[in-house]
Amino acid sequence: MILEIAQIEIKPGMESEFEAGVKKAVPAFQRAKGCRGLTLQRSIEKPQRYRLFVHWDTVENHTVDFRNSPNWQEWRACVGHCFAAPPEAEHVQEVLKGF
Amino acid sequence: MILEIAQIEIKPGMESEFEAGVKKAVPAFQRAKGCRGLTLQRSIEKPQRYRLFVHWDTVENHTVDFRNSPNWQEWRACVGHCFAAPPEAEHVQEVLKGF
Repeated sequence: MILEIAQIEIKPGMESEFEAGVKKAVPAFQRAKGCRGLTLQRSIEKPQRYRLFVHWDTVENHTVDFRNSPNWQEWRACVGHCFAAPPEAEHVQEVLKGF
Repeated sequence: MILEIAQIEIKPGMESEFEAGVKKAVPAFQRAKGCRGLTLQRSIEKPQRYRLFVHWDTVENHTVDFRNSPNWQEWRACVGHCFAAPPEAEHVQEVLKGF
């Protein structure tokens, strides 16, 4: 399993609408192939910055299967109007669990 | 509880030494006031880039208590020589657990 970290900057004043949009989009991720979980994190230092954490079985489940599916269109329909810039996505793998 | 995300770029070829250093530093975090967990994530797109995820009770447990303690010095002694640049740390709070 891998973790997608999507850094998302939101237009000023649209934070509540964005958070509601992510909640609305949850079923689209639940339906997505290989998607194992989603949380939304908000930056404390920069409250207009969020990080969407999505667990996938593989990177391709995100970059190929999801992005080419109606689920992606649904996700963007729920939140795209709140973005101040295109999200930056990166994928990481846990290499150590300290405790 | 909040999550510290520290983005760390490592000197080429020092990845294994860095990972071993993080493992060696785990007890310093276990001893740190308010520290509730640590994992190390490695970027798939940029394998010299890591993200250290550390759960703290409060931001100040990291920025004040930890950084002014011998535990921080121990952490840096274990891994500092592997850094290609100073780490960039940010703190986030979970605002939505989708599933």
